[in-house]
Amino acid sequence: MQIDKYKIDEHNNSLLKDHKRRFEFAAEGVAGLEGILKKLVDFQIAIPSWALGTGGTRFGRFSGGGEPRTIEEKIEDVGLLHSLNKSGGAISLHIPWDIPKDAKAIKALAAQHGLRFDAVNSNTFQDQPDQKLSYKFGSLQHVDKATRKQAIDHNIEVIKHGVELGSDSITVWLSDGSCFPGQLNFRKAFQRTLESLHEIYVALPDNFKMFVEYKAFEPNFYSMTVGDWGQSLLYASKLGPKAYTLVDLGHHLPNANIEQIVALLLSEGKLGGFHFNDSKYGDDDLTVGSINPYQLFLIFNELVEGMDARGMQHATDLGWMIDASHNVKDPLEDLLQSIEAIKIAYAQALLVDTKTLQAAQEVSDVAKAQEILQQAYRTDVRALVAEARLRAGAALQPLQLYRNLKVRENLIKERGQKTVATGL
Amino acid sequence: MQIDKYKIDEHNNSLLKDHKRRFEFAAEGVAGLEGILKKLVDFQIAIPSWALGTGGTRFGRFSGGGEPRTIEEKIEDVGLLHSLNKSGGAISLHIPWDIPKDAKAIKALAAQHGLRFDAVNSNTFQDQPDQKLSYKFGSLQHVDKATRKQAIDHNIEVIKHGVELGSDSITVWLSDGSCFPGQLNFRKAFQRTLESLHEIYVALPDNFKMFVEYKAFEPNFYSMTVGDWGQSLLYASKLGPKAYTLVDLGHHLPNANIEQIVALLLSEGKLGGFHFNDSKYGDDDLTVGSINPYQLFLIFNELVEGMDARGMQHATDLGWMIDASHNVKDPLEDLLQSIEAIKIAYAQALLVDTKTLQAAQEVSDVAKAQEILQQAYRTDVRALVAEARLRAGAALQPLQLYRNLKVRENLIKERGQKTVATGL
Amino acid sequence: MQIDKYKIDEHNNSLLKDHKRRFEFAAEGVAGLEGILKKLVDFQIAIPSWALGTGGTRFGRFSGGGEPRTIEEKIEDVGLLHSLNKSGGAISLHIPWDIPKDAKAIKALAAQHGLRFDAVNSNTFQDQPDQKLSYKFGSLQHVDKATRKQAIDHNIEVIKHGVELGSDSITVWLSDGSCFPGQLNFRKAFQRTLESLHEIYVALPDNFKMFVEYKAFEPNFYSMTVGDWGQSLLYASKLGPKAYTLVDLGHHLPNANIEQIVALLLSEGKLGGFHFNDSKYGDDDLTVGSINPYQLFLIFNELVEGMDARGMQHATDLGWMIDASHNVKDPLEDLLQSIEAIKIAYAQALLVDTKTLQAAQEVSDVAKAQEILQQAYRTDVRALVAEARLRAGAALQPLQLYRNLKVRENLIKERGQKTVATGL
Amino acid sequence: MQIDKYKIDEHNNSLLKDHKRRFEFAAEGVAGLEGILKKLVDFQIAIPSWALGTGGTRFGRFSGGGEPRTIEEKIEDVGLLHSLNKSGGAISLHIPWDIPKDAKAIKALAAQHGLRFDAVNSNTFQDQPDQKLSYKFGSLQHVDKATRKQAIDHNIEVIKHGVELGSDSITVWLSDGSCFPGQLNFRKAFQRTLESLHEIYVALPDNFKMFVEYKAFEPNFYSMTVGDWGQSLLYASKLGPKAYTLVDLGHHLPNANIEQIVALLLSEGKLGGFHFNDSKYGDDDLTVGSINPYQLFLIFNELVEGMDARGMQHATDLGWMIDASHNVKDPLEDLLQSIEAIKIAYAQALLVDTKTLQAAQEVSDVAKAQEILQQAYRTDVRALVAEARLRAGAALQPLQLYRNLKVRENLIKERGQKTVATGL
Repeated sequence: MQIDKYKIDEHNNSLLKDHKRRFEFAAEGVAGLEGILKKLVDFQIAIPSWALGTGGTRFGRFSGGGEPRTIEEKIEDVGLLHSLNKSGGAISLHIPWDIPKDAKAIKALAAQHGLRFDAVNSNTFQDQPDQKLSYKFGSLQHVDKATRKQAIDHNIEVIKHGVELGSDSITVWLSDGSCFPGQLNFRKAFQRTLESLHEIYVALPDNFKMFVEYKAFEPNFYSMTVGDWGQSLLYASKLGPKAYTLVDLGHHLPNANIEQIVALLLSEGKLGGFHFNDSKYGDDDLTVGSINPYQLFLIFNELVEGMDARGMQHATDLGWMIDASHNVKDPLEDLLQSIEAIKIAYAQALLVDTKTLQAAQEVSDVAKAQEILQQAYRTDVRALVAEARLRAGAALQPLQLYRNLKVRENLIKERGQKTVATGL
Repeated sequence: MQIDKYKIDEHNNSLLKDHKRRFEFAAEGVAGLEGILKKLVDFQIAIPSWALGTGGTRFGRFSGGGEPRTIEEKIEDVGLLHSLNKSGGAISLHIPWDIPKDAKAIKALAAQHGLRFDAVNSNTFQDQPDQKLSYKFGSLQHVDKATRKQAIDHNIEVIKHGVELGSDSITVWLSDGSCFPGQLNFRKAFQRTLESLHEIYVALPDNFKMFVEYKAFEPNFYSMTVGDWGQSLLYASKLGPKAYTLVDLGHHLPNANIEQIVALLLSEGKLGGFHFNDSKYGDDDLTVGSINPYQLFLIFNELVEGMDARGMQHATDLGWMIDASHNVKDPLEDLLQSIEAIKIAYAQALLVDTKTLQAAQEVSDVAKAQEILQQAYRTDVRALVAEARLRAGAALQPLQLYRNLKVRENLIKERGQKTVATGL
Repeated sequence: MQIDKYKIDEHNNSLLKDHKRRFEFAAEGVAGLEGILKKLVDFQIAIPSWALGTGGTRFGRFSGGGEPRTIEEKIEDVGLLHSLNKSGGAISLHIPWDIPKDAKAIKALAAQHGLRFDAVNSNTFQDQPDQKLSYKFGSLQHVDKATRKQAIDHNIEVIKHGVELGSDSITVWLSDGSCFPGQLNFRKAFQRTLESLHEIYVALPDNFKMFVEYKAFEPNFYSMTVGDWGQSLLYASKLGPKAYTLVDLGHHLPNANIEQIVALLLSEGKLGGFHFNDSKYGDDDLTVGSINPYQLFLIFNELVEGMDARGMQHATDLGWMIDASHNVKDPLEDLLQSIEAIKIAYAQALLVDTKTLQAAQEVSDVAKAQEILQQAYRTDVRALVAEARLRAGAALQPLQLYRNLKVRENLIKERGQKTVATGL
Repeated sequence: MQIDKYKIDEHNNSLLKDHKRRFEFAAEGVAGLEGILKKLVDFQIAIPSWALGTGGTRFGRFSGGGEPRTIEEKIEDVGLLHSLNKSGGAISLHIPWDIPKDAKAIKALAAQHGLRFDAVNSNTFQDQPDQKLSYKFGSLQHVDKATRKQAIDHNIEVIKHGVELGSDSITVWLSDGSCFPGQLNFRKAFQRTLESLHEIYVALPDNFKMFVEYKAFEPNFYSMTVGDWGQSLLYASKLGPKAYTLVDLGHHLPNANIEQIVALLLSEGKLGGFHFNDSKYGDDDLTVGSINPYQLFLIFNELVEGMDARGMQHATDLGWMIDASHNVKDPLEDLLQSIEAIKIAYAQALLVDTKTLQAAQEVSDVAKAQEILQQAYRTDVRALVAEARLRAGAALQPLQLYRNLKVRENLIKERGQKTVATGL
């Protein structure tokens, strides 16, 4: 299924009058309005190939209908989403769930949908049917050299796929760790992991980045060998300038101040990118902004400020990916909601009166500093985000149009009710 | 496979001298030694039928070999374990993973192994292949009456299976809840769940108990409809005298004082029983006592004290079950370690000098109260636990004998390497 | 110091044009606008007498200037605040920090400022200079009967003060608990506390309510004898219809779903009221809405829905108090920000399209349910809240006017730089 | 008060027979027994000068009697403790609570008690009466250069005191951070703090170490500028080889794996030392080993293994300090219990069969690895620890002797009931 441009125009026309009223109100007095809108237009978030099917937990998985059965259908799904909001212009592939057999053809298909390939993802947290050695006790940390070698080779293979597809980064998430005291020698596990990462690192093409993702717990429940930002930064620093830390919002201990971590990593020049999602208890993989949208805003506030300070281009210098699991919603709807939440947070952060904030900070005027952030956050920026979409040729109300066009119903007709996408 | 009694005797004889020395040392000066040993002999912990295969997470499951393929083989496994430690004399069945086709035959088989049937468990957190209505959005809380009815009927069916097998309790664990704000009306969800539970409650035979299990999160990640002990107690109180709260040690928010909850539930006459495991982060389902054994001891300390105060029989008046997941260990070894940890904690609790403790409490002598608990906890009671096993006809060192007899290797030979038991 | 009405008018006039534009935009299409505004006007939040000075931690306290030195000056401070926002029309006294020597005069003084007396608060968590028996090891839970008696008598004394002042409720917050395993017998501590509460309960006048506040930890760090909502509800249920649970937002374990607790307590008819604040780690006592404003909105969403379902009057049937500590801000500024955050959350909750939400819930349309809540939350309601203030005779921008009028500077001039208010 | 040696001998003689029996049992089959006993004898833990009075919380402080009123009396207290257990042979001073007026005399006094001076501690988390600039908004991070300078100068002053007393390290704990989003620019705060630390660093004598302590929260409740081990390590790495990370066990987010942090810091050569205590919720400052003794053991297990791997001397190469608060116990009793818990954990860790453990790790035999750790942990090592005390000339049962000798009663007689020691 594809969404004809005229359907979007039709939709936009029907909402235009009301939109204009809202936009004019929202735009009034906004300094640098055009620059903000341009940033919103340019900002693209990558969609992971594994997020297009219904997610699940160890307790169960309740598939919806019309899930993509192939990598081509996954590209079609991201294409649909991107045509609705012009903000999901990249796809992040997971190997081996989505191995492109004909990279050129896949790249061309993606291009037709206006999509490029973002970071590629390796998988050494599961055993594949044809796999020689098991990752039951880890991969890059494994006590057995041959198992480490297998995992290293897999990562290098993934990089090759990435190169063929025009990606310029690999995300290495390791589930390596231990479930019980005594299982691992922490020091040796760190050392082995570092050596394994190093072997992958030296295989990186010149323009390639390696993102070292950390996670506090799960699937290992006593220790994780890349367990927090401190460890990830240690690895990335020892590896070299192409290695960076990747922040997944759900991968922290309770109450962690993620925005501070983001600010420090950025300041160290070692922030690689994000996996966006939201959580209340752990790696819940909920829709971005559905639990604590103020935290999301605060993270973007650090990004806007920190990237300005480093002279970075917001939209392109970091890896922006969603990494959520859609257990009780239509995945495409969930992704539309996620991107909307991200754009809103970004727009609010762009509205922060930085100069006045800095002035307040310089005199420790805490109440005023809070006022300034809240002033931006309490502003209803939805019309600004919608205007950016309008200018980019997307729909004013993507989710509404998605429902009006009965996209899911059509996908079910095309693909069937009982399809199950690869993924978790 | 079965373990011949003479193998156990052989094993015990080879260790007897050393054991005697240790036991004599441990026994010296212990008040009420014989009573303590008897309690240790009598104390039986139920093994859940789903804990005999390798567990997993949503990220993967790495099966070991020789897993039981049928309910008969599961009973065989529990039989093996029970013959080694004479402490796992009950099995807790999960329906529909383990539906006995011929209850009488199954009951007879269990009896041959010295096993009885503990609480039966219903499952409305997964959809079964032949199931009419989905539990994607809950079961007993579902907005759709027919779905609730289906879940109620399933529970009543489970009770029937229990009756046939000689079980006298049903554990109702509901994954019901919500993943996002707005998904549920909390009040109505509570009300619907209460009504559904009531329909199950009225179907209970006279001697049957209902255990209402609570859990803070997972698989729902915003709210759980039976989320904490307060909610479970509300349900149990409104339902009536046959309804009780069941405490799973891993089902709490971070830092919860579980021993206090246990004490209060016991004091209210509403503690039904336990699901034993250990955890560091959430419902990690780790081996009992592997992360915080002092907490386990403190829980048993409350149980010993509270049951004494209520005139209860320790070993039989509550439901004692293990509910762990064995992701990186041989399940039977893990269960042997779990039972050992439970017995140790129980033995230490039985050693607490209750009178002196109460006297210290009466004068708020905090340092002394701590000394008294630590005095018991720091005592090496393994020889007492081993002596209880010896007297019961079990092995002095069950895990050691298990390995010496190459039980797993034999099971793999009998059942094959690639078997996968039903369960999570 | 007092703020002349004409200063407020002057301030409002200068902002009126811009306000009108914003209000008209905000009001467009709002169903039941007048009803909403009226609710916002009526909604009053009580200010605790201990919140008017700079707060601190065990590590230090950095007093600001011009803190109120007497109960009269505290009333003056609340009067100032109330004249600015007409939303803080009640004061919650803490005994013995603020014992009114002449209740009649104090009541008259408060009335002059348009203030009434909300819940009175007892204090058995500190020893007073002239106190006979110490609360080092608890008060209502104490093993010593005379100490319990002393604490009971104090609470009854506090009720008497409340009666004289026209208050109709007492908040009982107990720091009772234990710091170490073994220190307390949980069951007996619960029982003693219940009996002590009962003696206070029977001393309540007919129209008086007792709020039983719970707290997860601090100042006791192993157990709290009223530690969670489940325990508080147990006490309140056993005590009788005049006893209620009070929810302090910062008194929970990490990740607790407070809005669900609120919904259940309301549904049980046992929600007494709130202590508003915000927190990231524990009982941080931060400005309301400064850390997780979406959670605040979700709580109000439950309140609006639940009170409608019970036919309650939102503004008057529950106790609404702030309980924050102002360590790094001017207390009055902090309180103005807190009340603004509360009103915004309330206004957003009033905007929720309840009917459509219920319809979405009835068909488990999770994405839509989320949309509806976010639709209300993302709306900029500040102009509605400001309009309510305008109609009530308060300032459009209370904090701005507070600063323009140099209130703090004036208070310092009147009272001195080095004054320290009683409190924590 | 001083404890005569003959009182200790008397006490030991009365217990000797029973001790011998226990020691012989405990010693049987222990490989390297004499080496272990020597390590236990040598291992000394520093007592902080602020831990000799009753601690408190912001809610209250309930002083006991006989608290030391001067630095001389504090040394006397530590001397008493050390004479009882010969394990607290160092004192850690806090400036300005305990400024030695005559360093030489103080040093001589300490030497008389067999005490040396461990790390000195600076204090920039409180304002002192005569202080020019306030630390309300931080010290080394402060936006005002003069305030930073004042804090730097204070730290340099503290080092000078340390030099005079023969100390060779300074512990810098900063309460610096923020209470609200927006208050701080994280990047600049980090940078300013780093620069300030650098100025202190360059003032270090050659043999001096700087310990950079981290803390997750409190007294700042939104961010801490040295908030976790990752940040502390960043500072320490940038500062140079004399800067190290200090681990306070209570300064972590919920569920943190502290033993892994310890292992990694040790492996990086950046572990400076410890502040020992225990906690259930946060920085509870409870008696060491009173909440989770297995965690304490696991930490020591990493230390023993890691220090062996680095060829370090266990007893002297790291800073070992207690940092607890004694709110409901006699401080000296609490300290005796703490040291006992530390020694027990250390002894258990020394019993771990490292070779077999490593062999199990090399084949991922998780169950066996757990068995090996539990084997050591479940061993009753109290007789070994007591034997080490006996050989060092200390009491077999220090707490018992402390009570028998009525030390506290004597101190009250000497110093009075209402004395309050400086500290928190």
